[in-house]
Amino acid sequence: MRRQVLSILVENTSGVLSHVSGLFSRRGYNIDSFSAGVTADPRYTRMTIVTSGDELILEQIQKQVAKLEDVVDIKILEPDDSVTRELMIVKISTKSDLHQGFLTINEIVGIFHGKVVDVTHESLVIEVTGHTGKLDSFLDMLAGYEILELARTGTTGLSRGADNITIME
Amino acid sequence: MRRQVLSILVENTSGVLSHVSGLFSRRGYNIDSFSAGVTADPRYTRMTIVTSGDELILEQIQKQVAKLEDVVDIKILEPDDSVTRELMIVKISTKSDLHQGFLTINEIVGIFHGKVVDVTHESLVIEVTGHTGKLDSFLDMLAGYEILELARTGTTGLSRGADNITIME
Repeated sequence: MRRQVLSILVENTSGVLSHVSGLFSRRGYNIDSFSAGVTADPRYTRMTIVTSGDELILEQIQKQVAKLEDVVDIKILEPDDSVTRELMIVKISTKSDLHQGFLTINEIVGIFHGKVVDVTHESLVIEVTGHTGKLDSFLDMLAGYEILELARTGTTGLSRGADNITIME
Repeated sequence: MRRQVLSILVENTSGVLSHVSGLFSRRGYNIDSFSAGVTADPRYTRMTIVTSGDELILEQIQKQVAKLEDVVDIKILEPDDSVTRELMIVKISTKSDLHQGFLTINEIVGIFHGKVVDVTHESLVIEVTGHTGKLDSFLDMLAGYEILELARTGTTGLSRGADNITIME
């Protein structure tokens, strides 16, 4: 089992999300995370899908996705040759002790270059960005706190350098 | 036409993304942005969908999504009562003049609390987070530069305060 990050440029049609996710679902391919947003050109959307499987499956996924009518281009984001990021918002209860161990919650947030974006008497909302491993480590550090809610965007990314997904027209 | 942000807690099944996106596609509902990531409990995924339509359509969307079998809970994130964020990665060409107007590219990045995450002789990769309007303003400021690639995660968010999406079991 290997993890693979696919960057897929698609036409911005109402059915495209359903076509791509339908393919994964019908064939039983794993989706570990999914994100989609418009590009600089509003005719196109960029989807980033993190998937996993053995080499044969990963190759199949790439081929099958590339065949879909609304897919303009597909690229594998290799860890060494790309910038991948995810955003996470976590709400923790202030009823849990906010100074549990060696570090205060504020110190932990600082080390992870996070930001407290909302605070009430009952709760604290923290925003952190980074690669998936960093966000997982941050969650690990929150083990002693009561997490009320958590939202992650899923991974997005671009290749390093001037290389880009070209629009074939 | 009004914009609405839906926070949807779903069971983490292989078909759930396809079920939700299929509903939007079949009924012709708009999806302006889409993001999905696992929660603190790996059995559940939180999807955030930004949609738009008149009042009647928005009400229909909410009811239809809530009816889907794998949907555990659905909540509207009202602008005044929630924290919503999006992450964007932009790659610009260093062949465009990096000091075009009043401000250098580095100064613009600083004002938007962004970060330069990669640089080569040909390109500069910038990461910015914030609500959708802030990211749009940042892109506006990049108008004079050549954008090589752009990836956005789509909006994610949580309600403010101790209120949370409860898991009904």
